[in-house]
Amino acid sequence: MNRTIYCGLVDESYFDQEVCLKGWVQKRRDLGNLIFIDLRDREGIVQLVFSQEFGPEALKVADSLRSEYVIEAKGKVVPRDDDAINSKMKTGKVEVEIHEVKLLNKAKTPPFYIENGINVSDDLRLKYRYLDLRRPEMQKAIITRSKIMQAIHRYLDENKFIDIETPYLTKSTPEGARDYLVPSRVYPGHFYALPQSPQLFKQLLMGAGFDRYYQVARCFRDEDLRGDRQPEFTQIDMETSFMSAEEIQDITEGLLQRVMKETLGVEMTLPLPRMTWNEAMDRYGSDKPDIRFEMELTDMADAVRNVDFKVFKTILEKGGQVKAITVPNGAEKYSRKDIESKQEYIKRFGAMGLAWLKVTETGFSGPIAKFFKNDVENIKKAANAGVGDLILFVADKRKVVADSLGYLRTSIAKELDMIDKTKFAFLWVVDWPLFEYSEDFHRYIAAHHPFTMPNEEDVDLLTTDPHKAHAQSYDIVLNGYELGGGSIRIHQRDIQEKMFKALGFTKEKAEEQFGFFMDALDYGFPPHGGLAIGLDRFAMLLSGKDNIREVIAFPKNSKASEPLTDAPSTVAQKQLDELHLDTTED
Amino acid sequence: MNRTIYCGLVDESYFDQEVCLKGWVQKRRDLGNLIFIDLRDREGIVQLVFSQEFGPEALKVADSLRSEYVIEAKGKVVPRDDDAINSKMKTGKVEVEIHEVKLLNKAKTPPFYIENGINVSDDLRLKYRYLDLRRPEMQKAIITRSKIMQAIHRYLDENKFIDIETPYLTKSTPEGARDYLVPSRVYPGHFYALPQSPQLFKQLLMGAGFDRYYQVARCFRDEDLRGDRQPEFTQIDMETSFMSAEEIQDITEGLLQRVMKETLGVEMTLPLPRMTWNEAMDRYGSDKPDIRFEMELTDMADAVRNVDFKVFKTILEKGGQVKAITVPNGAEKYSRKDIESKQEYIKRFGAMGLAWLKVTETGFSGPIAKFFKNDVENIKKAANAGVGDLILFVADKRKVVADSLGYLRTSIAKELDMIDKTKFAFLWVVDWPLFEYSEDFHRYIAAHHPFTMPNEEDVDLLTTDPHKAHAQSYDIVLNGYELGGGSIRIHQRDIQEKMFKALGFTKEKAEEQFGFFMDALDYGFPPHGGLAIGLDRFAMLLSGKDNIREVIAFPKNSKASEPLTDAPSTVAQKQLDELHLDTTED
Repeated sequence: MNRTIYCGLVDESYFDQEVCLKGWVQKRRDLGNLIFIDLRDREGIVQLVFSQEFGPEALKVADSLRSEYVIEAKGKVVPRDDDAINSKMKTGKVEVEIHEVKLLNKAKTPPFYIENGINVSDDLRLKYRYLDLRRPEMQKAIITRSKIMQAIHRYLDENKFIDIETPYLTKSTPEGARDYLVPSRVYPGHFYALPQSPQLFKQLLMGAGFDRYYQVARCFRDEDLRGDRQPEFTQIDMETSFMSAEEIQDITEGLLQRVMKETLGVEMTLPLPRMTWNEAMDRYGSDKPDIRFEMELTDMADAVRNVDFKVFKTILEKGGQVKAITVPNGAEKYSRKDIESKQEYIKRFGAMGLAWLKVTETGFSGPIAKFFKNDVENIKKAANAGVGDLILFVADKRKVVADSLGYLRTSIAKELDMIDKTKFAFLWVVDWPLFEYSEDFHRYIAAHHPFTMPNEEDVDLLTTDPHKAHAQSYDIVLNGYELGGGSIRIHQRDIQEKMFKALGFTKEKAEEQFGFFMDALDYGFPPHGGLAIGLDRFAMLLSGKDNIREVIAFPKNSKASEPLTDAPSTVAQKQLDELHLDTTED
Repeated sequence: MNRTIYCGLVDESYFDQEVCLKGWVQKRRDLGNLIFIDLRDREGIVQLVFSQEFGPEALKVADSLRSEYVIEAKGKVVPRDDDAINSKMKTGKVEVEIHEVKLLNKAKTPPFYIENGINVSDDLRLKYRYLDLRRPEMQKAIITRSKIMQAIHRYLDENKFIDIETPYLTKSTPEGARDYLVPSRVYPGHFYALPQSPQLFKQLLMGAGFDRYYQVARCFRDEDLRGDRQPEFTQIDMETSFMSAEEIQDITEGLLQRVMKETLGVEMTLPLPRMTWNEAMDRYGSDKPDIRFEMELTDMADAVRNVDFKVFKTILEKGGQVKAITVPNGAEKYSRKDIESKQEYIKRFGAMGLAWLKVTETGFSGPIAKFFKNDVENIKKAANAGVGDLILFVADKRKVVADSLGYLRTSIAKELDMIDKTKFAFLWVVDWPLFEYSEDFHRYIAAHHPFTMPNEEDVDLLTTDPHKAHAQSYDIVLNGYELGGGSIRIHQRDIQEKMFKALGFTKEKAEEQFGFFMDALDYGFPPHGGLAIGLDRFAMLLSGKDNIREVIAFPKNSKASEPLTDAPSTVAQKQLDELHLDTTED
């Protein structure tokens, strides 16, 4: 019997028709001479009715059915009784009178309910992922992800991008994150690496003249995991030749618009706002600001310069910043203890303290209020604060101020439910610094990667004062997440060499790791640039989830293992022998 | 300056228009006061003209341009002189009078010409792959591959398939080919494996209720390489629930039809021919017959049974076969020496000899002709042979006969140019044996894989006489290549257990390797089946190439290394230490 239609799509248009349905038993209600079964497939649920009248054999079978049994059922679609109509469901006006049913497979009792919002451990969900994925919210998330990809394929194809696959077994170039290695059987002591991104290959494809490239590319990084990191992740990887940063941004905006329209039906107005990195740090204390809400950082230097509060004074004299955010109606909501715990938290950003004022009818309250008695109006004006508001100050070096207030801004907005969750706020952050100081490596590293083109006017800085250079790079931000990023790339060998030098590479090391690439630049490399969008994060945000595991069919757990298959696992000694390997610990 | 249009697309519709072009200098002809430059981009070539009149500065720059320099040029599109028209090129009626040109990048002299049909070593091409890929035939092949993928995405999306990514870091299940392993840093002595295919995951997705899945999936096999094998390759991977083998074949035919139409403009008539495995072996001596030409195998048993030729007699008495192919007009074309060298070749299939007869005006010629004097007409009739034809006999066990004559059939067809290369001959080969004897492993292995469902009537054979069972499996064949294959899968635990047992797995080994999967079958697994198509091979055939390396942007060479990046390579000791590994050789 061929299926007529998915369960979840049977509606009034099928009245009086004979249908064949296939799916899983969601629920069974036995009224003795009448059995109701909710049958589920990926499109939803429909109600089946069994009775002596409709089919005595079918009724017998129905009696033996249990949750998650797989069946095939044939029957007639009829209207439900008026009092049984469920107008929230597509199938809520119909039921199917079954005269023939076939059990296709039995099921043990699942370890959790196949329904939304279950409360079980992540590892149990991952071990039985095939059951977890049956839950409607998971089906929806995975289908949303697929829809995003379909929209992307269509849009990029229409815009003459060529889908080109790049190798997954390639060379280890351990700059940045740690590589996953793959031992070679043919060459003892040699290893392939899984790519952290197709960066060099996509640039080589521009050198090869493909002009517009894209790929849905798996990327691999052997890093310690955090909430939204996975050992393998997917990026929508794009590269174009002869286009400016603005042109690349424009074409990307079209892509985002298409995705929003085709996955969520959301109409998006273009162009998207663009903000320099400097402005983002100044106004939001973040290089990926969430602009769904305000509560921006304000510079309080002028307002506090003459106040007799030593902490602020000293900082300002040393060239530091005094900035604040104003929490609307925050005075009542945050106790001294609450604020102290926030002060504790921002120590990780290097902040020495968190000064605060509550605005009262008569002035300010709080431990330092007394210093500001004579400047109430000035400060209220500068902070745009009114009675009942809470002003939080951080005074320090620029980066500490930005990190601390940027963190406070978003954490407080979440706590006070200030964020409109129905909004999708996209934003370009442009004109990034070329380098950033890495606390991990104790040296400057490339803010994006070593192939990023400096701003034209900053090229000379590469040899004189590289860390002042800004880059032709841009990030696309969505709701406070870095959705993707890209840049114009270096296409001249001499600039690339200077870049490696500025990053501390010796000539030999640069040659050993990237010689093949610099050679390629010698053979007529076109100006080029591109962008990559994190598909996992994009799917997560469009699905309203808060972890990328929820939009990956078979993710690793937080310890990089896969509870379903038990990967990674030990292997036979023969396999190791063939790879010329020994393990040094067990 | 933004590009107006690709070089290769400038035609009469641009007459008198100002255009901005970007591309590579293909050729420069200097006539003193006039310079012609062929400018190339991915769409083709257009002729630029420089002169004192059009632009004196541009003329100066043009004078300095060399092959593969990258330029940007602005000018007016004009008609060519009548005698300069090249009607074979899209741009053959136009040239562009350049008044402004900008050098974007210089180029060293490439190690080979950027043109079709170059004759240089594979490794040189791979080392400079970015130059090799600039050659028009390579551009076309890679673009054809992309078009195939686009057609596939569109078709499968329209048919409600969901694109779902499965893990690349997963568990080693070394059945069949050798796994590539990825050492875990977190779990000493543990390894992920790169998947040989997403087989189990796609089946689990059916268990999860997604109903129709597809993925353009990279697969990895650490095998010794042959002409059309690569360490990593791509398959169009599909799986569906509740569909019969015939339904899956139908939906696949629609896919193939769409791809042929959208990539080559070829209209394909459906349904495709279907042939059982037995028939394919009998008629073509191959499980992937090339049906673009005839020269089928004919059973000569009846015709030779009473001939006094001992070799044939003995074989037939022992239950073997005597079969032949008739090479039209082959008598003149193949000397005794030619035939002896073929006889030598087919020894690898186990053949003891190659008997032959040339049909003359008066009967047969050849060393064994004398035995057949009285049976000329009989044999000519059975072999459908006429004067001037060559009849080649192999007498042996069925498999030897099929392998030998199957090989002779295709190699002779190639030698005699009997194949219409413009044809695309698709064919389903169905009803495969469930098992085949592996000479490598000296035991029966799964003809497809251990998850293939036996024919309904053969399920009982699994416990009694498994190697007689046939499977619900099907291969799609194109021009003598296995393009893809699939099957209905086992969805019941007891059958899956019997299958592992028939394959020689102990209960413990089956549990250890596939326990998680058999557990999944316990929880309401739907009937399901699918198919995978080899994208590399498909692209190769549609591009008219004879090696998949020609349709992969960055393939490995025949020794599994990548001459461009030098992967695989040695890595730092620190990387090995972190992975708890030592190499045992250097």
